[in-house]
Amino acid sequence: MDLKSAIRTIPDFPKKGIMFRDVTTLIKNYPAFNESIDRMYELIKDKKIDAVAGIESRGFVFGAPLALRLGVGFVLIRKKNKLPGETISQEYQLEYGTDKIEVHKDAITQGQNVLLIDDLLATGGTMGAAAELVEKMGGNISSLMFLVELPDLKGRDRLTRWPVHSLVEFEGD
Amino acid sequence: MDLKSAIRTIPDFPKKGIMFRDVTTLIKNYPAFNESIDRMYELIKDKKIDAVAGIESRGFVFGAPLALRLGVGFVLIRKKNKLPGETISQEYQLEYGTDKIEVHKDAITQGQNVLLIDDLLATGGTMGAAAELVEKMGGNISSLMFLVELPDLKGRDRLTRWPVHSLVEFEGD
Repeated sequence: MDLKSAIRTIPDFPKKGIMFRDVTTLIKNYPAFNESIDRMYELIKDKKIDAVAGIESRGFVFGAPLALRLGVGFVLIRKKNKLPGETISQEYQLEYGTDKIEVHKDAITQGQNVLLIDDLLATGGTMGAAAELVEKMGGNISSLMFLVELPDLKGRDRLTRWPVHSLVEFEGD
Repeated sequence: MDLKSAIRTIPDFPKKGIMFRDVTTLIKNYPAFNESIDRMYELIKDKKIDAVAGIESRGFVFGAPLALRLGVGFVLIRKKNKLPGETISQEYQLEYGTDKIEVHKDAITQGQNVLLIDDLLATGGTMGAAAELVEKMGGNISSLMFLVELPDLKGRDRLTRWPVHSLVEFEGD
């Protein structure tokens, strides 16, 4: 199946000049959504993975089913001030200013092998911060998984310390 | 398995006097998370369901695996201004003021049978708005599904038009 054709492109969102890759059309399409999880599973099934951690909020949509397919728990990496328990946070750069992601302090334990997942790899800023956060907690990064990659934004160049997987690419972004 | 004991309670979050039921401890616990999805599936497997729609963002964690288990697509119901395409929205009451949820206009089609899911039923305000949104689009509500219910807040009283399911209850909230 051509997963790429299941993803809709919306021009000028969230601002002029951006071609937004809208994965909601893939998610509501059962055969495409199911095959996405299958293909992700095939890419990493032989790795040591003790937990999957997904980045809010589209990372939850792919991460939760993948964790269950792997037979491991799922960890939520959230925007700041969303998690109720004690958290560890990591700042990352935005175009203007900085933002922060957080995870519960007890969500990842020393030596755990963690697969990190988000829907889309653009510049890699958020995922880089998430990977550093997991390492700060003593976890090992098994892989970084994305449904979509925008190679022109060179996100992989920021993530060279870790294995990166993606299922589909859109050029010209 | 006692799913209730897999859920952590955090006092005074997000404000003094609230006993916050933290489902992240269940989600990171594979046997508990997997059994939650199994039990939800058992409750609704004989119903007519063409799509699962989950409410941002913890509803995504339970809704996506349940949709795949049922063999149907998954629809994202999001906070305002998050979805890139044309949306339909529904307001709902907060303690102070109002908020809005949105869904893509083409995400649900006339006559589709939709299961709505969120992690927790408190006053039922958000879920009521989500159900009205789906009906406004011509969808039929198959059921409203929650992991946790807080019966003292009488959310079911706001949702009497639809069948409501939950897996665990916490009294005294």
